Amino acid sequence: MKIKPQPLTKAAFAPYGDVIEFSGNVDPRIINYGHTQKFANLADLDVLAEGGKPVVSLFRTEPLPRPISIRVMERHPLSSQAFYPLGDHPYLVVVAAPGEFSVENVRAFLAAPGQGVNYRKGTWHHYSLSLNAVSPFLVIDRGAEGQNCDEVFIDEGVLDIEY
Amino acid sequence: MKIKPQPLTKAAFAPYGDVIEFSGNVDPRIINYGHTQKFANLADLDVLAEGGKPVVSLFRTEPLPRPISIRVMERHPLSSQAFYPLGDHPYLVVVAAPGEFSVENVRAFLAAPGQGVNYRKGTWHHYSLSLNAVSPFLVIDRGAEGQNCDEVFIDEGVLDIEY
Repeated sequence: MKIKPQPLTKAAFAPYGDVIEFSGNVDPRIINYGHTQKFANLADLDVLAEGGKPVVSLFRTEPLPRPISIRVMERHPLSSQAFYPLGDHPYLVVVAAPGEFSVENVRAFLAAPGQGVNYRKGTWHHYSLSLNAVSPFLVIDRGAEGQNCDEVFIDEGVLDIEY
Repeated sequence: MKIKPQPLTKAAFAPYGDVIEFSGNVDPRIINYGHTQKFANLADLDVLAEGGKPVVSLFRTEPLPRPISIRVMERHPLSSQAFYPLGDHPYLVVVAAPGEFSVENVRAFLAAPGQGVNYRKGTWHHYSLSLNAVSPFLVIDRGAEGQNCDEVFIDEGVLDIEY
């Protein structure tokens, strides 16, 4: 199977989580005595279950060799996980809806620089797929003891990204 | 009074909160099958008091005219507030330690691109002081009903930034 990335939009990504971006479709609040536009509350940060606390981290991810073959997907059964790109390169977002995993349900999105995503609790996702260059991300997720990550493995060549 | 910004470092900023950065002094965890460096848990996101939830927003702030005169400082008595710069320009961080406000206690830091800050609960701070250009920030703070912002006002010319 080959899947072709589609553009990342709030509507297309809604089954999987939130798109975090400066949106042309939303009027910002004007704060700080007129000096700041505020686009407020852009993601459902669902990180408090079972004693969880919000945690902010920085990631630096290197691109996979092409063609990109999807070999592993993960989900966090207890929490959301948000990624915001800090660099100037696009990246890929590869997801499948919560529930039983099936390769037929996998979708790929091409995120532009400045577009972050917040995976909803339980959404299957590939780890950060930088394109072009080693890329930094800011990550907001849940800090707590205990297990909060399931993985499924896929044989090489079963699911490739056509990019 | 004129205050001159000092470089933003974790040590110098410790009385006011956290610096969020890719630090050369910390060894990252290697995750994602070797493809990602993770600098984990870089700030104390203290946003849960009195029913608070973590919220992520995007700000776009225009520079103040120079010379920059500090006219207002604010604090959030119930929560921290984190700012991470998304652009390529430095910015100013102007703070005073928690407790009774006094202009003598105000300090200024010059943050480089890639350096975020997390104001500790109660730390007095000026709103985002972009330099050079309209600048985007990612903000992590507390969402809840009710009041969580105190302000103090300062006459023009009493406290200027020498930058």
